[in-house]
Amino acid sequence: MSELDMLVIPEQIEDGDYVIATYYLQTGRNVDIVKKITSIAVEQTTGTWVPVPEETPEVREKHVAKVVSIHEIPGYEYEVPGGVDTRQWVFQLAYPAVNFGPQIPMMLSTIIGNISMIGPLKLLDIKFPPKFLAQFKGPKFGVEGVRDLLGVYDRPLLNNMIKPCTGYTPEVGTRLFARAVEGGVDIVKDDELIADPTFNPRETRIKMYMEVVRQHYEETGHKVLYTPNVTDNALKVLDNARRAIDAGANAIMINYLTVGISALQGLAEHPDINVPIMAHLDFAGTMYESPISGMSSHLILGKLARMAGADMVVYPSPFGKFPFLRERYLQIGNHLNNPWCGVKRVFPMPGGGVMPNCVHAIYRDLGPDCIMGCGGAIHGHPMGPVAGARAMRQVIDAAVKGIPLLEAAKEYPELQAAVDAWGVMDEDENALFDIKG
Amino acid sequence: MSELDMLVIPEQIEDGDYVIATYYLQTGRNVDIVKKITSIAVEQTTGTWVPVPEETPEVREKHVAKVVSIHEIPGYEYEVPGGVDTRQWVFQLAYPAVNFGPQIPMMLSTIIGNISMIGPLKLLDIKFPPKFLAQFKGPKFGVEGVRDLLGVYDRPLLNNMIKPCTGYTPEVGTRLFARAVEGGVDIVKDDELIADPTFNPRETRIKMYMEVVRQHYEETGHKVLYTPNVTDNALKVLDNARRAIDAGANAIMINYLTVGISALQGLAEHPDINVPIMAHLDFAGTMYESPISGMSSHLILGKLARMAGADMVVYPSPFGKFPFLRERYLQIGNHLNNPWCGVKRVFPMPGGGVMPNCVHAIYRDLGPDCIMGCGGAIHGHPMGPVAGARAMRQVIDAAVKGIPLLEAAKEYPELQAAVDAWGVMDEDENALFDIKG
Repeated sequence: MSELDMLVIPEQIEDGDYVIATYYLQTGRNVDIVKKITSIAVEQTTGTWVPVPEETPEVREKHVAKVVSIHEIPGYEYEVPGGVDTRQWVFQLAYPAVNFGPQIPMMLSTIIGNISMIGPLKLLDIKFPPKFLAQFKGPKFGVEGVRDLLGVYDRPLLNNMIKPCTGYTPEVGTRLFARAVEGGVDIVKDDELIADPTFNPRETRIKMYMEVVRQHYEETGHKVLYTPNVTDNALKVLDNARRAIDAGANAIMINYLTVGISALQGLAEHPDINVPIMAHLDFAGTMYESPISGMSSHLILGKLARMAGADMVVYPSPFGKFPFLRERYLQIGNHLNNPWCGVKRVFPMPGGGVMPNCVHAIYRDLGPDCIMGCGGAIHGHPMGPVAGARAMRQVIDAAVKGIPLLEAAKEYPELQAAVDAWGVMDEDENALFDIKG
Repeated sequence: MSELDMLVIPEQIEDGDYVIATYYLQTGRNVDIVKKITSIAVEQTTGTWVPVPEETPEVREKHVAKVVSIHEIPGYEYEVPGGVDTRQWVFQLAYPAVNFGPQIPMMLSTIIGNISMIGPLKLLDIKFPPKFLAQFKGPKFGVEGVRDLLGVYDRPLLNNMIKPCTGYTPEVGTRLFARAVEGGVDIVKDDELIADPTFNPRETRIKMYMEVVRQHYEETGHKVLYTPNVTDNALKVLDNARRAIDAGANAIMINYLTVGISALQGLAEHPDINVPIMAHLDFAGTMYESPISGMSSHLILGKLARMAGADMVVYPSPFGKFPFLRERYLQIGNHLNNPWCGVKRVFPMPGGGVMPNCVHAIYRDLGPDCIMGCGGAIHGHPMGPVAGARAMRQVIDAAVKGIPLLEAAKEYPELQAAVDAWGVMDEDENALFDIKG
């Protein structure tokens, strides 16, 4: 098979049998780029560094990755200017889906397995044929299902992470939980740093928290979801989730990137797991932070989480404590929440320093179908957690009604106290005033 | 709790209750480094971006990470020279093990979870207290156990990856398998790119390959292990492994980084999985390739794989097709194979372009307790796979006896043919001649 035989014209393979991966690559000046990229295509499918006898033309034809495009950035044509020692490329490979079937681990091994180790190469995107995607069940609840459970349809939801992150007892947790619930949060999640430590057993806290949920519903008719963290060794998470549900949990959470994305899929697809699943982002930066290696944040926190069946995904807000580009957070919102071949929509939940002063911006960016992920702004509110939750509900309502923050704050002392404590956001700069570094 | 209270003198916490993580960090010139690092310590344990009421002094004392050391690289004392805009730091945090318990996912969420997303920070190492480590079972077989199964004690083992990587039928695979076995390999592994595709069902191929193993043993008394790839969604790998063993497999393999490190641990700890486990490295580069984010290769491919119970780990050779620093490959060998608080030793298996001309170097570097991971050099040998395997066995024996490659090649036509095809290695340069890029 010649190099030319491995190049294809894109329209020619749009028959649904290929998963198309887009990569960034850096090379030296004198690279033979077609040779290099066809070698990568062979390496990730049929071949190795020398010709082997059973890599027949027929095997190649059916199973080798095809080179869909190679673009130099910028697109030199008549010469590579003097002084350019590093050249940059975007290229696409089409992998026969039959090589790995409808599962995430073998797909990742194929698309970004060994080639994750060839130097400056980053996986930018994966495009799935709809009939491949149809083999994944996706979210069991999705945006609509979670809304139905809560009976809330007309505004962004409010989630609270209990703070401190860890180190407290179920009794302390129950006090904090009850305050957040009293203040009007829709969802309470465990922090990603607490799962089932000796000082705070998961089932004990589930029973205590869910009793608060039950009482609160009886008294007010307001429904609350609680997502206990079932993170554990991969082969234990299903059992943990079952026990959590048996103990009364009406949702669960998993640190899906330290356990493995497919463990999330296993939970979402299992008939016993009849509650929504929140997927937490921690560890994602190990794979996405490098601009020239690893894989894009919107794949890890967007498409792959949605395929695997997350109902809600926690991911970085660009307005808070983590440095994160606004365009990245919008792209993740796009991949979670826009129509995608019939796969249910997922609630994006920006978190990490979300407070009243960025709610208008998040609502403007993501619309009503998002969850405000709010920890410190509730539990660290100067008037206490009940007021902290109320301030967040007040500002969410103001954003939906189109009332500016400072105007709404005049009506609500809780919101005014938050503004006094943490300032307002300079939207032009996408930066925050008065936030502790 | 003041900043000073969060700093500790290292000896003071060496009581076995803390897991100590070492990080690399880049900052701007005007950073307040003590404030920044104590903030990280709080973020990854008890706290968030604002003080919260239940983060009491007692909670902080018991559960916050302690700052063990902060070193600037290089170590400016009286001034930061003009023109230095980026400063580099190595620092260590001690995490109370009680926060996460003896499991890898919650430990990674704590040590490199949210802070994987704060910008230029790389996890360089983790040091475990022996009593924490003792809660992990580690490898079930290890170097000694695998040697006992094979009855080979005096030389590096020879593994063959069947090539092509994927796209072939069980019948074709069986032919290739039989040739490699006839040539004298000790272990045959599936390629990481084949698991259970429609065109080559795993159990079908196991039965056919293991019949070859049985016949070969009857005829020659030579034992061979076969590691079918059980990679799949995390919640399916245990069942896959059980079926593989039921079908006759005497070992298994898993792409442990696309499934999740703890899935490997789940297999290794399970009483039904009474065969050695080979852990394949693909996807590792997504986490280790960046010099300023993610985590070190020797953690992912060394300590964590050993804790999780791999008996053999495939990892990049510095002499082959992947760019990899020799010091990194030696460090992985160290972490897998040197004494470590009673955790069984693991076979390091360098792979990716291993051929006869680098066997002497690998033997010199890793000693007898390693596995030569050899794919194309066997199936792409000019005289065929039987000769390819023989050439590898010949050069392994020569290395053990201290006979130089070219001298041994004079005695063995198979080895001479390999030398003729692929040249010799320039050891001074750590580079190879005549290898297809």
